[in-house]
Amino acid sequence: MTDNHLRPVSLSRRWHYAREQAISFLMQQAVENPQVISLAAGLVDFETLPVHEALAGVQELLADKDRARHALQYGTTPGADDARRAVLQHFARQEGRTPDQLGFDTARVVLTTGSQQLLSLACEVLLDPGDICLVADPTYFVFLGNLQGVGAEAVGVAADDDGMRTDALEAALRQLEAAGKLERVKLIYVVSYYDNPRGVSMSGQRRREVVDIARRWSRTQRILILEDAAYRELRYDGPALPSVWSCDPTGEHVIYTQTFSKSFSPGLRVGFGILPQDVIGPVCDRKGNEDFGSANFNQRLIGKVLESGGFEQHLQEVCRNYVRKRDAMLEAAEEHFSSIPGAAWVHPAGGLYVWMTLPEALDTGFNGRLFEEAVKRAGVMYVPGGLFYAAGSPRNQMRLSFGVQTPDGIREGMRRLAGAVRAVT
Amino acid sequence: MTDNHLRPVSLSRRWHYAREQAISFLMQQAVENPQVISLAAGLVDFETLPVHEALAGVQELLADKDRARHALQYGTTPGADDARRAVLQHFARQEGRTPDQLGFDTARVVLTTGSQQLLSLACEVLLDPGDICLVADPTYFVFLGNLQGVGAEAVGVAADDDGMRTDALEAALRQLEAAGKLERVKLIYVVSYYDNPRGVSMSGQRRREVVDIARRWSRTQRILILEDAAYRELRYDGPALPSVWSCDPTGEHVIYTQTFSKSFSPGLRVGFGILPQDVIGPVCDRKGNEDFGSANFNQRLIGKVLESGGFEQHLQEVCRNYVRKRDAMLEAAEEHFSSIPGAAWVHPAGGLYVWMTLPEALDTGFNGRLFEEAVKRAGVMYVPGGLFYAAGSPRNQMRLSFGVQTPDGIREGMRRLAGAVRAVT
Repeated sequence: MTDNHLRPVSLSRRWHYAREQAISFLMQQAVENPQVISLAAGLVDFETLPVHEALAGVQELLADKDRARHALQYGTTPGADDARRAVLQHFARQEGRTPDQLGFDTARVVLTTGSQQLLSLACEVLLDPGDICLVADPTYFVFLGNLQGVGAEAVGVAADDDGMRTDALEAALRQLEAAGKLERVKLIYVVSYYDNPRGVSMSGQRRREVVDIARRWSRTQRILILEDAAYRELRYDGPALPSVWSCDPTGEHVIYTQTFSKSFSPGLRVGFGILPQDVIGPVCDRKGNEDFGSANFNQRLIGKVLESGGFEQHLQEVCRNYVRKRDAMLEAAEEHFSSIPGAAWVHPAGGLYVWMTLPEALDTGFNGRLFEEAVKRAGVMYVPGGLFYAAGSPRNQMRLSFGVQTPDGIREGMRRLAGAVRAVT
Repeated sequence: MTDNHLRPVSLSRRWHYAREQAISFLMQQAVENPQVISLAAGLVDFETLPVHEALAGVQELLADKDRARHALQYGTTPGADDARRAVLQHFARQEGRTPDQLGFDTARVVLTTGSQQLLSLACEVLLDPGDICLVADPTYFVFLGNLQGVGAEAVGVAADDDGMRTDALEAALRQLEAAGKLERVKLIYVVSYYDNPRGVSMSGQRRREVVDIARRWSRTQRILILEDAAYRELRYDGPALPSVWSCDPTGEHVIYTQTFSKSFSPGLRVGFGILPQDVIGPVCDRKGNEDFGSANFNQRLIGKVLESGGFEQHLQEVCRNYVRKRDAMLEAAEEHFSSIPGAAWVHPAGGLYVWMTLPEALDTGFNGRLFEEAVKRAGVMYVPGGLFYAAGSPRNQMRLSFGVQTPDGIREGMRRLAGAVRAVT
């Protein structure tokens, strides 16, 4: 009845959907090549991590014994009440309104393990295999993994320096309608501020249009917009744009997500969502199954730091610091890449990324000559642009992050990268 | 093309699987009836929450600027290295071995948002709709929700005061084989210490047998055991039993999970798993999609507290306190229930629960007379026993928790509960 051979573990179909993780390969490369300057990692600046503010917050949180114990006890699935109140206030402030003017209370706020968890939860509760989500081409590649993970189809929509093109969005919907697939369209995913990977924001005009399009094309089922505002607060210059959420007078078409990972500390993993009425229950049900609530302690800590003003003050320091880094990267790009014919790059007004296009003949992919030259010989790493496309993509682009390295590291990394590009062209 | 009516949100099949959450109803009852003494809540003791230890841990963690920043930066999907090392040491200590004697390193350790997230992840990567997981009848009802959430079938196996009956497990497998369903059996779920809800532990003999059964019945695919050791450290008297994990010489048949929520602080939401070689990758891939790592800060804090010895010391205090509470509940049961014919209860040697059986005619369910009498008039709440059964269940049982209330609260709660029972019989 038995022998000594171990039988294979039988893995679920859902796991098979999701198994290819480019990010694991990148992390592996970083580990195996420690001398490499990484312009790939999506981590945040190390020097401005809020050591002082976190300690002060914890001390305040734990100073009162009763409050301390509530922070160390289980929370609830949607998150600690006090923290959700502080988050709602924070959201209202960004929207230029009072919490009362928002027209809803904390029941619409859900706190998650980073905004990533909310992206994942939204896919889980809204998408069946074969369902469709429209995304900008290129877009945040981890989210493409989420879509894959539920067996959904990502349909890419052309984007330019004003974000996803609304004419292309409308055209994509018309095509899907003609193909009899309109009923499978459930979501439009938009990284609305200084997006990942291109570093550009959707224009005000397009924000209004994308909401209008979602409403008009909601024929049988509602088409929801998933607004990923992860980088909203990392604004260095240019206008403070209204959220896509604010363009929806019903409040029922947009799932808004944001995180404290970029603006404060990713180690605390606190993100939040503002959800349409009909989506709160399902998301909380699902979250209840997954973890019945993210760390209550961290939520209350974020709540404290928001209330004390420590957050606002810290954010200003963070932004000042990133301005220097962004400028270092753009200056180095100018210095080392402007003489490479066909090289071009976006000048971001916020966020963490510079999106670069190289001569057409160049393949930036993991299997191309440039990646190997850069990592193994020049000692610099980037993220191949192809990873960010839903389907078929230019092969000559790359995402460069100025989040982690110091200005000097950025300059050196850019010098090395330009050297690698020259070596393979 | 449009009108003013909002279209319905189309929810995924997976959400429909998972939507009925008894725990939400219970929480709702608690909110609506604040005067009620809850013997239902699975929260932990409030007075012994580690305020001092948490503060000392955070201060130490943040004292060194470099270390502090690493704690506030992103971590990795399986968790912070230092913390995983401390957790592995902690696990080895419980197993009565050195980390070297375990024969594997931290690569097998995954840190999660409570052990709940690991239960959820295991279901996600191992179970397709129609797959089968064998569970003790009764068992932890949130896990039944996880099975439901992936469309899997929970097959109940009779249990007694030595835990899941291995003869009944074998019989269930024979039945499944006869029905042509053996290939759908992927998991056996065991709450191995002071289980939820019955408060009993699987005997040493049965621990060995369940591993033997899983190995023998792994004909085409491996049948894994999911060992939930959430309450392992809450041992008040009786022997320290070896884990089911330790009965598997291959190390490849048991997924072991444990949490610091019961032994230290649920507000930090740190749990962990020790995984078979073939399961690590899939679980991390899936976790990467869900949240790419739980709060790094909290993991490092737990690591610090484990290393400093603060954890061990605190655990002793926690156990001393729970002994008093357990004894208060058992004494009150004796005082108020022993004269009720047919009432009987388990004397737990650890954990947080007393499992009580009432006269057969009594229905403890949400729609029965007792629940209403208890909550609305007597002012006490319990968890109906029926929730813990995979299918068809005695209706006259209940789970009573001594975790949250003070000894006086427990005594008063038990007095009220006995009154409610008398009122409806």
